Order: sequence, then structure tokens, then C-alpha cells
Amino acid sequence: MYLHHPTRAELDLPAVLHALSDPQRLRIVCLLAERDQPCACSSFGLDVTKSTLTHHFRVLREAGVIRQELAGTSKLNSLRREDLDSRFPGLLAAVLAAELAPAA
Amino acid sequence: MYLHHPTRAELDLPAVLHALSDPQRLRIVCLLAERDQPCACSSFGLDVTKSTLTHHFRVLREAGVIRQELAGTSKLNSLRREDLDSRFPGLLAAVLAAELAPAA
Repeated sequence: MYLHHPTRAELDLPAVLHALSDPQRLRIVCLLAERDQPCACSSFGLDVTKSTLTHHFRVLREAGVIRQELAGTSKLNSLRREDLDSRFPGLLAAVLAAELAPAA
Repeated sequence: MYLHHPTRAELDLPAVLHALSDPQRLRIVCLLAERDQPCACSSFGLDVTKSTLTHHFRVLREAGVIRQELAGTSKLNSLRREDLDSRFPGLLAAVLAAELAPAA
């Protein structure tokens, strides 16, 4: 199975913002940022079907927000923090801070 | 005509990111940030139909990114910069910087 990843130069701001514009994908991104190591898709405790979970990870990968690596029959996910920080300085930090802040 | 605006406390991060995840809406937001004064919808030089333009401004208003005020038969738009900065510090600045930066 080939997993396409956009290069750093190919990262597109609207696509990245769209990938981040879903509550469950935001939760995945926050958990990846906290854990700071590759994590299996099943480790996020999201109450969604497997196909929905697969969809969310694919949207994040295709936008360049995460990297997915095959590990046996599962995929390991990690945040492309350096690529995002390089192309869109401050964006990921602001999104993580906003998502993790207590509600107003 | 009543134009609904979410309060500052009602601003929702996924909704704001979704509103910003479209190239034409990003352009509108950048132009509003540059101009720093209320602007009519027709003043943005976007090559889209009137109904598409109305849609984009409505998405931005309903997410709380812009404020729309009726002025005769048109609407004047302004950026809710203070509300966004208060709820999501650094987010708007990072998005504007990324959008206005030269492509990688």
C-alpha cells in the first residue's frame, strides 16, 4: 500500500486549515502533539466507526498535517510539526493552544 | 434583515478554521485586515457570482470571523480581529502571515 504525502513545499494553507476544521481531527492532532511519538490509529479513543477514523487520518495525511507509516497491518501516525512550522510559522502552536484552552 | 453574529464566547475553533479553509474567503480576510475599515462585499474584486460571494461572506459572519452591518441595500464587512485574538491568540496573525507570505 502506497501512502502519498505532500512535500513541505506542496503544503497548502486552505487544505491544512480544512484538515484542522473538524473536532475529531483536532483531537487527533492535539493527542499526537502531546505524545510526540508515532501512534496507531486505534490508540486515540475516538468513538467513531473504523471507516470514519480511516477517513480522518487520510484527510490529515493528504493535507500534510500528519505522516503515516505502515507497520505490519496498522499505520503509525506522527505530526509533521517541523514542516508545518516551517511553512506556516505559529499556526500549529496557535491551533493547539486554542484547542487545549478552557472554553471561554 | 437580521444578521446573526455569534458572541465572542460562542466562537468555535473548528467553525473558524472551516471559514478560513477556502482560498477566496482567505483572500477576503486578508483584504479586510489590510484595509482595516468596513468594506462593501462588491469591493473585493473576486471573480465569482454574486450568490457565491454572498455565501462566502455568510460563512465568515456565521463563524464569527467578520461582522456585517447593513448600509442601505449593501452590507459593510469588517474583521472581528479583537474577538478572534481574544479567543484564539495568535491564530489570525499566523493565518494572515502564511497567506501573505510568498509561496515556498
